[in-house]
Amino acid sequence: MISIRLAGPDDFDQIWPLLREVFRAGDTYAVDPDISRDAAFTYWMGQAKATYVAEDAGRVVGTYYIKTNQAGGGAHVCNCGYIVSADARGQGIAGQLCIHSQSAAAVLGFRAMQFNFVLSSNESAVRLWQKLGFATVGTPPDAFQHPQFGMVDAFVMHKKLSG
Amino acid sequence: MISIRLAGPDDFDQIWPLLREVFRAGDTYAVDPDISRDAAFTYWMGQAKATYVAEDAGRVVGTYYIKTNQAGGGAHVCNCGYIVSADARGQGIAGQLCIHSQSAAAVLGFRAMQFNFVLSSNESAVRLWQKLGFATVGTPPDAFQHPQFGMVDAFVMHKKLSG
Repeated sequence: MISIRLAGPDDFDQIWPLLREVFRAGDTYAVDPDISRDAAFTYWMGQAKATYVAEDAGRVVGTYYIKTNQAGGGAHVCNCGYIVSADARGQGIAGQLCIHSQSAAAVLGFRAMQFNFVLSSNESAVRLWQKLGFATVGTPPDAFQHPQFGMVDAFVMHKKLSG
Repeated sequence: MISIRLAGPDDFDQIWPLLREVFRAGDTYAVDPDISRDAAFTYWMGQAKATYVAEDAGRVVGTYYIKTNQAGGGAHVCNCGYIVSADARGQGIAGQLCIHSQSAAAVLGFRAMQFNFVLSSNESAVRLWQKLGFATVGTPPDAFQHPQFGMVDAFVMHKKLSG
C-alpha cells in the first residue's frame, strides 16, 4: 500500500535519486542526461503548480508534478510527469499516480491534461496512458535520439478532465 | 526591401513594442497577456539560441527566435517564433523570416523545426507554414481560450531541415 501526499522542498533529498536514475539513462525524458540537482529541482518542483510523492512505509517510491502546459489562453491545460523508482515498478504505482494527478489537477482548476512527449519506444507508458483514457493527438516524427533504438517518434497524449 | 540580422540585447528596445502588441492581444501566442518586459526578454532572447530582427530602412519591422525545442535526446529539433509589426504585415515578411530561420537553424545544427502551438484560428499563419513545407503532426483539441472565438484547437507543425 502506498500513500500519496504533497511534497515540499525538503522532500527533494528523496525525490532526486529517482529523477537522477531516469534522467541519467536518457531514454524516456527529454532532459539533458547531465542535468544538475539544482536544475532538476527547478524542472520537477520549481516550475510546478504542485509536486507529489508516493510513499511506501515512509520511503519515497514515486513522484509526479503538475505544471501549466501553456501560458495565457492555454493555461487551462496541465502537463504532468511521473517517475517510479526502479525497485518499485510493476506494482501499478504509475497508474495510481496518474489517477491521483487527474483529481489533483481538476481541483487546481485544470480542464485537460496533456503529455507533450511520450516516446513511442516507451511502450509500457503508452499502453498505460491509453488504458487511463488518454488519446494520441499528435506524433512528431523522429523526435528523440534514443540511446539504444536511434530516432523514435514522440506522441502527444491528451485527456479532458472531469471537474 | 528588408534586411535580416542577428539581434543583441540592445535591440530589445525596438523588439519589445512588436512583442508587446501581440502578447497583450492574447490571441495568437500562449503567453500571459500581462507579461512584463523582463519576462518577454527572457522568453524571446534569454532562452533562445539566437534572435534575429528584420529591418526596413533601419527600423525593426519583424523578429524571430530559434530555441531548442526539447532537451536531451530531443535537442536536434528547434522551435521558432515570429512576429511582424502590425504596420508591416501583408508584405511577405513572416515568410522571409521563416525561410531565413530554416537556414539559420540548419547552420546551428538543428535537423528539424517544430511549432508546438499554432492556433487553428490563426489561418494566415497556418496557410503560410503549409506553403513553406510544414506538416501538421498533431492537433490538441480545445487548446486555447481565444478572446473572440472561444476554445480553439492548436496545431503541432513540423518540417525536416536540409543541412
